Amino acid sequence: MQRHFVMKLESLKSTLIRMSSLAEQAIAESIRALLERNPEVARRVIMEDEGINQLEVVIDNEVVDLLALQQPVATDLRLILAAQKINNDLERIGDHAVNIAESALQYASQSPITRPLDIPRMATITKTMLREAIDAFIHGDSRLARNVLKNDDEIDDLNRKTIDELVEVIRENPGTLLEQALDLIRVSRNLERVADLATNIAEEVIFITDAQVVKHHQLDHLQAPRE
Amino acid sequence: MQRHFVMKLESLKSTLIRMSSLAEQAIAESIRALLERNPEVARRVIMEDEGINQLEVVIDNEVVDLLALQQPVATDLRLILAAQKINNDLERIGDHAVNIAESALQYASQSPITRPLDIPRMATITKTMLREAIDAFIHGDSRLARNVLKNDDEIDDLNRKTIDELVEVIRENPGTLLEQALDLIRVSRNLERVADLATNIAEEVIFITDAQVVKHHQLDHLQAPRE
Repeated sequence: MQRHFVMKLESLKSTLIRMSSLAEQAIAESIRALLERNPEVARRVIMEDEGINQLEVVIDNEVVDLLALQQPVATDLRLILAAQKINNDLERIGDHAVNIAESALQYASQSPITRPLDIPRMATITKTMLREAIDAFIHGDSRLARNVLKNDDEIDDLNRKTIDELVEVIRENPGTLLEQALDLIRVSRNLERVADLATNIAEEVIFITDAQVVKHHQLDHLQAPRE
Repeated sequence: MQRHFVMKLESLKSTLIRMSSLAEQAIAESIRALLERNPEVARRVIMEDEGINQLEVVIDNEVVDLLALQQPVATDLRLILAAQKINNDLERIGDHAVNIAESALQYASQSPITRPLDIPRMATITKTMLREAIDAFIHGDSRLARNVLKNDDEIDDLNRKTIDELVEVIRENPGTLLEQALDLIRVSRNLERVADLATNIAEEVIFITDAQVVKHHQLDHLQAPRE
């Protein structure tokens, strides 16, 4: 029974890794669709979200199976409940990829904004945050998870800066670049939300590894000093 | 032991009701702050989000206690896991109320948009959806939950219409109403997300009451015909 439980727990972790790969790929592809102005890639992201949604249901069922199989000890219980939350977060990341892909579709049909913006940089940092948060979960690495929290502030700053610049673009070109700027504001906000969700995952990891509640910024004093 | 479990389950439900009241109130107050251009109300919503965040942790702990107490039967297990998800959804609704309150703060400092918009109507429908979704959970009422799903389409339409109208406002007054229109676009999008989260809750209820997976629009054929 115990061995069976351990095997099921390992299976849950590997399904979660597959789920996070899909979510990360969806974000990467939606941003590629935007930057390369490629409607086909955008449409594929929208279509493939169904696979992420289905995997969410699979993982939810694995969680129920694991909890029904035997009464897990407190540590395993926290781990399994964290897996369920992370699963939920990843499904939402898939939804944000769809939002970005929809904006990319609209953006591709209009003349582009040539002003350089930090969206590619935001996307790179966000993808790294997501990957590190999942790695931290898989390996129970709270140091790596703390690293994710630090990056979230940078994304917040870049999001604000990007929106300010796009407001400027609208002000200067209300007749020609309004829709495009609104599309990019939406992309920036969605990336910021993805970074938030990666932060949620990292907070879960710190919670279960250190048994400390770091949610909602109660952990600021435990973080490494900002450089 | 069994009686102890039932009592704890009832306690979990009532904490969840308290959490949903706070979330609903936060949305109501953030919209009031916007419509009445009242910065004090907006600031209070932002400040009081901490209470919602703390209650999320309390409920998470109740969930762990319940699962650790004894191995619940499959039905109870699904119910408890649904409670955890709903808890998470409510905390996010609190975050959206903060976003709306932030926009309300900015909006109050500038000249208002006089064009009539559907934001008050969206807020009313969204609050009803949230209340009905929670009622449906508490009473295991899948018919009420299905009602929530129907309303989500109306919110999506109103959100699109509101954004279109605000884009028009920007086009006509790029020099004077740009920031205000962007604030209201953000409010509209946040209300749409709250309606989505209420829909998530309703889907959970249908799932546990009917043991059917309705997530991700697999239930369209089971819904009452649209009028």
